[in-house]
Amino acid sequence: MRAYFNSDNYAPVLPEVMEALAAVNAGHEPAYGYDSVTQRVEALLRREFGGQAHAFLVFNGTGANVVGLRALLQPWQGVVCAESAHLNVDEGGAPERMGGIKLLTVPAPDGKLTPELVARWIVRIGDEHAIQPGVVSVTQSTELGTLYTPEELRALADHAHAHDMRLHIDGARLTNAAAALGVPLRAISTDVGADAVSFGGTKAGLMFGEAVVLLGGGPEPALPYLRKQSMQLASKMRYVAAGFEALLADELWRRAAGHANAMAARLAAALEGVEGVRITQRVQANVVFAVLPPGAGERLQRVWGFYTWDELAGEVRWMCSHDTRAEDVDAFAAAIRDAVA
Amino acid sequence: MRAYFNSDNYAPVLPEVMEALAAVNAGHEPAYGYDSVTQRVEALLRREFGGQAHAFLVFNGTGANVVGLRALLQPWQGVVCAESAHLNVDEGGAPERMGGIKLLTVPAPDGKLTPELVARWIVRIGDEHAIQPGVVSVTQSTELGTLYTPEELRALADHAHAHDMRLHIDGARLTNAAAALGVPLRAISTDVGADAVSFGGTKAGLMFGEAVVLLGGGPEPALPYLRKQSMQLASKMRYVAAGFEALLADELWRRAAGHANAMAARLAAALEGVEGVRITQRVQANVVFAVLPPGAGERLQRVWGFYTWDELAGEVRWMCSHDTRAEDVDAFAAAIRDAVA
Amino acid sequence: MRAYFNSDNYAPVLPEVMEALAAVNAGHEPAYGYDSVTQRVEALLRREFGGQAHAFLVFNGTGANVVGLRALLQPWQGVVCAESAHLNVDEGGAPERMGGIKLLTVPAPDGKLTPELVARWIVRIGDEHAIQPGVVSVTQSTELGTLYTPEELRALADHAHAHDMRLHIDGARLTNAAAALGVPLRAISTDVGADAVSFGGTKAGLMFGEAVVLLGGGPEPALPYLRKQSMQLASKMRYVAAGFEALLADELWRRAAGHANAMAARLAAALEGVEGVRITQRVQANVVFAVLPPGAGERLQRVWGFYTWDELAGEVRWMCSHDTRAEDVDAFAAAIRDAVA
Amino acid sequence: MRAYFNSDNYAPVLPEVMEALAAVNAGHEPAYGYDSVTQRVEALLRREFGGQAHAFLVFNGTGANVVGLRALLQPWQGVVCAESAHLNVDEGGAPERMGGIKLLTVPAPDGKLTPELVARWIVRIGDEHAIQPGVVSVTQSTELGTLYTPEELRALADHAHAHDMRLHIDGARLTNAAAALGVPLRAISTDVGADAVSFGGTKAGLMFGEAVVLLGGGPEPALPYLRKQSMQLASKMRYVAAGFEALLADELWRRAAGHANAMAARLAAALEGVEGVRITQRVQANVVFAVLPPGAGERLQRVWGFYTWDELAGEVRWMCSHDTRAEDVDAFAAAIRDAVA
Repeated sequence: MRAYFNSDNYAPVLPEVMEALAAVNAGHEPAYGYDSVTQRVEALLRREFGGQAHAFLVFNGTGANVVGLRALLQPWQGVVCAESAHLNVDEGGAPERMGGIKLLTVPAPDGKLTPELVARWIVRIGDEHAIQPGVVSVTQSTELGTLYTPEELRALADHAHAHDMRLHIDGARLTNAAAALGVPLRAISTDVGADAVSFGGTKAGLMFGEAVVLLGGGPEPALPYLRKQSMQLASKMRYVAAGFEALLADELWRRAAGHANAMAARLAAALEGVEGVRITQRVQANVVFAVLPPGAGERLQRVWGFYTWDELAGEVRWMCSHDTRAEDVDAFAAAIRDAVA
Repeated sequence: MRAYFNSDNYAPVLPEVMEALAAVNAGHEPAYGYDSVTQRVEALLRREFGGQAHAFLVFNGTGANVVGLRALLQPWQGVVCAESAHLNVDEGGAPERMGGIKLLTVPAPDGKLTPELVARWIVRIGDEHAIQPGVVSVTQSTELGTLYTPEELRALADHAHAHDMRLHIDGARLTNAAAALGVPLRAISTDVGADAVSFGGTKAGLMFGEAVVLLGGGPEPALPYLRKQSMQLASKMRYVAAGFEALLADELWRRAAGHANAMAARLAAALEGVEGVRITQRVQANVVFAVLPPGAGERLQRVWGFYTWDELAGEVRWMCSHDTRAEDVDAFAAAIRDAVA
Repeated sequence: MRAYFNSDNYAPVLPEVMEALAAVNAGHEPAYGYDSVTQRVEALLRREFGGQAHAFLVFNGTGANVVGLRALLQPWQGVVCAESAHLNVDEGGAPERMGGIKLLTVPAPDGKLTPELVARWIVRIGDEHAIQPGVVSVTQSTELGTLYTPEELRALADHAHAHDMRLHIDGARLTNAAAALGVPLRAISTDVGADAVSFGGTKAGLMFGEAVVLLGGGPEPALPYLRKQSMQLASKMRYVAAGFEALLADELWRRAAGHANAMAARLAAALEGVEGVRITQRVQANVVFAVLPPGAGERLQRVWGFYTWDELAGEVRWMCSHDTRAEDVDAFAAAIRDAVA
Repeated sequence: MRAYFNSDNYAPVLPEVMEALAAVNAGHEPAYGYDSVTQRVEALLRREFGGQAHAFLVFNGTGANVVGLRALLQPWQGVVCAESAHLNVDEGGAPERMGGIKLLTVPAPDGKLTPELVARWIVRIGDEHAIQPGVVSVTQSTELGTLYTPEELRALADHAHAHDMRLHIDGARLTNAAAALGVPLRAISTDVGADAVSFGGTKAGLMFGEAVVLLGGGPEPALPYLRKQSMQLASKMRYVAAGFEALLADELWRRAAGHANAMAARLAAALEGVEGVRITQRVQANVVFAVLPPGAGERLQRVWGFYTWDELAGEVRWMCSHDTRAEDVDAFAAAIRDAVA
């Protein structure tokens, strides 16, 4: 069987999640989140993210980001984010067309914002001709597989708050980050002062589902309306909730994400020092970026599944997931070494 | 165990669907609909709806309606629909705020449009001050449990086309309609000349998922973009597809919807002639609407689950689903007779 | 010269306004409303509408309505208005597509809302599936030439506030109303408890320009941003302001609107008792609606300018403006009598 | 009297335009552009921009850009523009929130795009996750006072068309560009293959008004609807038209813009070689950008009107207009020399 390093979206659902879905599949339950499973999960997420947190389950990551940002923004405010942010390059213009949201992008070669980069957009405050900076959005772990330390996030949150902005975290891979850092989820969200997080379930091993988690104060009363209006309210919500319940139980998420991270580290280690393979980003989560010699990527892609990230640069992306096997990583590393030899 | 007549959204997932989800849960599959299951389902839906049909799977009914209507409309065109349309009263303003779409509503006491009702909005053609009528949207079966005959739909499609409009069908309960009429799905969509249908899966027994089906010509190239932008593109699409595959196999949908319809008919029959119970709509699909004497509804709701539809009028809604049991219907009917006695 | 009864939009600019435009046409002035003329007019409008009022000049009526409503609404709230409201039938879908605003319409044969009519939409409060009623918008004088008394407006405002809604007045012809009622502008806006008014200048005799007037509290800080974003911020604002300054000086607006009202009354009086002419609305402002015998309208339109309002009903609209001459009214009335004879 | 170098928006209306406004101020004229003056101007603009051109008058520049771009774009397409484009930094988020339009920006130190810069965004074609490049928008003359030659524009248009994109010109200062290049308006719009232009009137000396000019083929039927819906349809259109008529008569625009350009050139020449004044952009149109020593700008601003462009860099902007006097330029240049001495 061909092994895939395309995306954690290619992976199946965690077996524990599948069981949980089957387990709740009996009898009638109120729709739209008024069921008992959702109530339990909302409580679990509150425990996970702290007593001020309110979680709202949605369908997918783009939905989570748009709903969360709509809650945090005034219509004349924009979102500072990295050029490489999923929000900017992979959401089909949903922020702009569905949310009316202007993104204020900065180049960030490693996918990470800093207060200095954010500061470029803290200009023309009070000038009605210019979209005002309202939210800083970071991705943790980033689209480039790098991580923010808690201290870096805290600095961004403090900086944002000092300028009347809020900090939003696109946490489509928050579990990978928390597993890699060896910290609880709240250590890289609530505890650093973030205002909202898109807590990703799908890439973590669910069938579908993300949670918009508001970490304290503010726009909670708006959320049910914004979620419904943004077409992100599931009717048979118990199944979204059951997935999260399984993921949170005994920190299943940490084992799953930790494994994916370990596989990426294993791949990177196996390629260390190999001539012709230049790893281009720090391997901190579950993905490896590398530049290969001309033609090598194409040859590999005939047998192995992965994406070309930057055609011109010859950069490829190898992503691991909860079910990536060590032997597949090893075989893939060997194939790479062959291909570049 | 308490029996619910609140909504077909309260019902669990069909066992066959649950099995299908488990069956596809192995190995990696391309994300975003490029997997083999989705390919198969797209072919199945083409067979079901005719060779010109293109189906695009989405998350939920509001999403299906907004995506489909965005595809059919110019920005200066509106949608003629019944005042009681889900689109108008139950989608949290998604058509307007997410799609920018103006609804041109007409009162329709039985939930059904007619060419005469539609014609009220065929005015001021070419006048830039007035939103132009672009689409007629009907719900089949309607929000009030009534049905359009194929002839009625055909008349609406012909009338729409004669005025440069298109016919859209909100088919959140299309299976109930087809089962009630004893016809294939295409007999009340493609074959009557409709242009697009939101083919509902969730209320039919899936965990989640609807299909935007474009029935021929036109805006197919736009759909992938509009679906993604409208936050309705599932990454692990194979699971949406697997549900539909199970639902379409051997017309599982017909058995499931037919059963729900039969239970509504059984309930209505059991209440026929009961003094104090006035059934307010023809019972043609899976729901019964009735007016009860003051206080009777509240008494019943202490034990049985169902919604008050119109508080002022004392009108209630009793909805059946694929898993409603005959004995529960009988017991409920008995309880109703008691309550109104 | 042919006389027109089409619209007060057909009329030229008041001579006093033209002089005012010429008078400010010297030297440089800060753009975007930071000029001295705008400062003066903002003060004048505050005097006119009360100390809590803040006025923001915009280009046109649709713009004034959309900007004002955007300021008053949350994204999940809608606007209760008459079916005949300009907002609903003559703004090309701007509220929906530009503002994302859902209109909650009620039939109102004389163009006027009442608390009872508004109450139809005060339902499903707190239900995220339903757009929540957030604003009541009335037109004064109405699109049908009728008037709200101050008491009627007060009742609407009180009712709205009692249900956490706000009262918005589309005052494209507020001057006609105030002149007809013989009251100051604030008597039918601020003093009745309205929250915002679109104060119309163009139909009152300006070249262009309306004012969004927030009558107290709330969203003032948002207005500059919303005005700019809604493409309604004039760069050479002094000219918008100069027109308003002239209009407000010595109540020029009252003389101009009063004359237009008088001409409509004169026309209606001249037709009283004429067989074949059925006046269909109370003539309270500057317009007369009438049903004529088949063919009569068309014959008249060959010589006189006016609009058919409802083709099926044979209803026509005759509108007077600040420059309508008594002799033209008399000649027109004679022509009408001839045409229906 | 203090002289202003803030903006051409600070300048008064050209006397010829003022006379034209007065001249049309008699009698009734159909509203919304059906008047005789507008008809004449539409014909004039067709002559100016070529037989395929269709012009639609609007209120302001932001409106012209949004209306024009809405006409050229599909909802999943974006606009490639310079980071410094007015569209991106000075329109209060109108493109995004009113038009739903994503801007695809590139850094362009002199404000000018090139095919190479545009090509950065010609990626991921057909990928529904990425907004597709649909339009290239350039500003002529640019926000930085630089010019595109006809050849440069032609190259951009050819490049755009070769990639299924269209070329849009933000011509808020198109007259300055045409005057500077000594060419007719069509030489830098129609003749280079552009698809649409926002032809600016306000900065050229009108009281208000811009024209969306579609240069051939395509979306003309959409324009009236989009203009109305975008709140850019003036009711008393004859006055917008009269201004344009005066501006186009005997190329008044060329004399006015040519004078402004000459004044900028005079200022730049007077500062050539002055130690402490570093002119930062080529002076090709009506504006001079310069970096001054710390404190010098502030001292000058106490007496003279102009904007700081980039506070950190100490960069200022001096803009000339149709009524800038040579003696004021000379006095200003002397004051600058003093201030930096």
